[in-house]
Amino acid sequence: MTDVALSLAEAQDLVVTIFERHQTSFENALHVAKALVAAEMDGQRGHGLSRVPSYSAQSASGKVDGKAIPIVVGRKGAAVRIDAANGFAYPAFDLAISELTTIARGAGIAAATVFRSHHFGQAGYHAERLAESGLVALVFGNSPQAIAPWGGNKGVFGTNPIAFAAPRVDDVPLLIDLSLSKVARGKVMVAQQNGEPIPEGWALDESGHSTTDPSAALNGTMLPMGDAKGAALVLMVEIMAAGLSGANFGYEATSFFTAEGPPPGVGQLVLAFDPTFFSGGGFSVRLEELLSEIVTQDNVRLPGALRGARREKARQEGLCIPSKLLDELNTLNQ
Amino acid sequence: MTDVALSLAEAQDLVVTIFERHQTSFENALHVAKALVAAEMDGQRGHGLSRVPSYSAQSASGKVDGKAIPIVVGRKGAAVRIDAANGFAYPAFDLAISELTTIARGAGIAAATVFRSHHFGQAGYHAERLAESGLVALVFGNSPQAIAPWGGNKGVFGTNPIAFAAPRVDDVPLLIDLSLSKVARGKVMVAQQNGEPIPEGWALDESGHSTTDPSAALNGTMLPMGDAKGAALVLMVEIMAAGLSGANFGYEATSFFTAEGPPPGVGQLVLAFDPTFFSGGGFSVRLEELLSEIVTQDNVRLPGALRGARREKARQEGLCIPSKLLDELNTLNQ
Repeated sequence: MTDVALSLAEAQDLVVTIFERHQTSFENALHVAKALVAAEMDGQRGHGLSRVPSYSAQSASGKVDGKAIPIVVGRKGAAVRIDAANGFAYPAFDLAISELTTIARGAGIAAATVFRSHHFGQAGYHAERLAESGLVALVFGNSPQAIAPWGGNKGVFGTNPIAFAAPRVDDVPLLIDLSLSKVARGKVMVAQQNGEPIPEGWALDESGHSTTDPSAALNGTMLPMGDAKGAALVLMVEIMAAGLSGANFGYEATSFFTAEGPPPGVGQLVLAFDPTFFSGGGFSVRLEELLSEIVTQDNVRLPGALRGARREKARQEGLCIPSKLLDELNTLNQ
Repeated sequence: MTDVALSLAEAQDLVVTIFERHQTSFENALHVAKALVAAEMDGQRGHGLSRVPSYSAQSASGKVDGKAIPIVVGRKGAAVRIDAANGFAYPAFDLAISELTTIARGAGIAAATVFRSHHFGQAGYHAERLAESGLVALVFGNSPQAIAPWGGNKGVFGTNPIAFAAPRVDDVPLLIDLSLSKVARGKVMVAQQNGEPIPEGWALDESGHSTTDPSAALNGTMLPMGDAKGAALVLMVEIMAAGLSGANFGYEATSFFTAEGPPPGVGQLVLAFDPTFFSGGGFSVRLEELLSEIVTQDNVRLPGALRGARREKARQEGLCIPSKLLDELNTLNQ
């Protein structure tokens, strides 16, 4: 299996066309395609073009409404409430980012919740867009159940990503983007496919015992990063992303992968801060001082540094798509 | 060494009087005393009366201005910026909570930053007060350097607490309160006093190598919870609490314990959300559903459950203060 080179424009056009063939409107297809191509550029393949087959099947089956138009259903001061209308998350985030950018400029802070939502890909993609407008951004999302309450054995919470971005002078935003599981479930799937054991500490079996058997892990739950403290953060994100927004909790949400069943209906919370107001004007200079202090140490790099290098390479050379995936995409484009 | 029982009123009066004798105004002394007694009630002794000797010495030396009056120095839409004026953090938080409660009711979301601030004790204490007014609260703080950037060996960031609280129907708020170090530095100090090794994974020596020697650990850095992901969260909190507020970063902040040197000048960020607005009204019911789902599992308890039990006991029986500490407090009260 070799990789095939595709220009960014070719990749985006291919994805847009596939979604249009699968009951997704052009406008929504464009939002989805841009986000997936951006993830692929960043080397985040789990949130990139590998999602096209499952996303498009969900649009075709109606589990995702590919023609949904997200709307602001509530507005109060510096807060907006957005109904993603069981469509893709990306059009709803586009609306949220537009609203937040305007509101935060006037109110210093702005918050948007999104409900009846879906997989929102790289959490950092959305945070970064706010930071490109000069705002500090914080994003929380929930996802279908994967993590048990600390001490338990049944999945209640998702892997619940957190993303943070801050604008920098003469550089791309500083970006932090992580899910709260110790490792991604995808790594366990890869181990299962390769017939290899997983390290102790990644997952529990369905009785709540630590396991190195990937099949037992996939029937069980993923461990949170940071043990009990991490499990508390998972609960916190679950309440902020799904409880606050009025969305489905992890244990109620259907899969982001299969085309069957009702929509997942998960939720997200996005915050935007005007750093100039809060800092009294010194934010940019102070952030650079902190980051300089960090990188004076040997063996230290800033979060997101690898991602930036991969993105630059993709800008110059296009994308390398596994030929098996490209065959699948070409089949979907018929 | 035995514990001595003290009623809550006796404890508060004693602390107030000590601070008044050490250049702290009555009003500020009362804010500090209430917070320290509350921490002691919750069994959080590291943030309780054990802080009275070092706090009062700092007020006496002028490192903390015990007579400072915190003020709102900036106001914009749903955001306020508070100068703690190098006084204790508690009076500034009282002002922040009062402002946030009013603003969040009207604007859906409200944010306050605090700068020229000091140790703010239990982060959850402040979050809980907002939740008692029906708001969902999120609190971030930075603290003097203790944690290195991931891969490094010099402390840059504090242990950077995060607290979250949500109002419950017919119950005290749900409370999550954690610092981002794997364990508190106080545990290393106890091991050093007892001449015992510390477990692998708690701390690094000054060369950045893992150590089980508590003295080497105290000259080195504490490890973050959750390894590299946790280290990224530490950076995120550092930027939100200190970068956004215009405060000192961990590596610039003086000790919260010693009476020498300039004020620590750390920062905090406090957010308050109106859950009724964001959820479309269903928040309370949905939160109870989630918490019920969690506690149906064996061996699982909600975060803060132990704290609640200790608090109830203290309400009924008063506080048990180690006699050595009480002797010290009585000496300070002369």
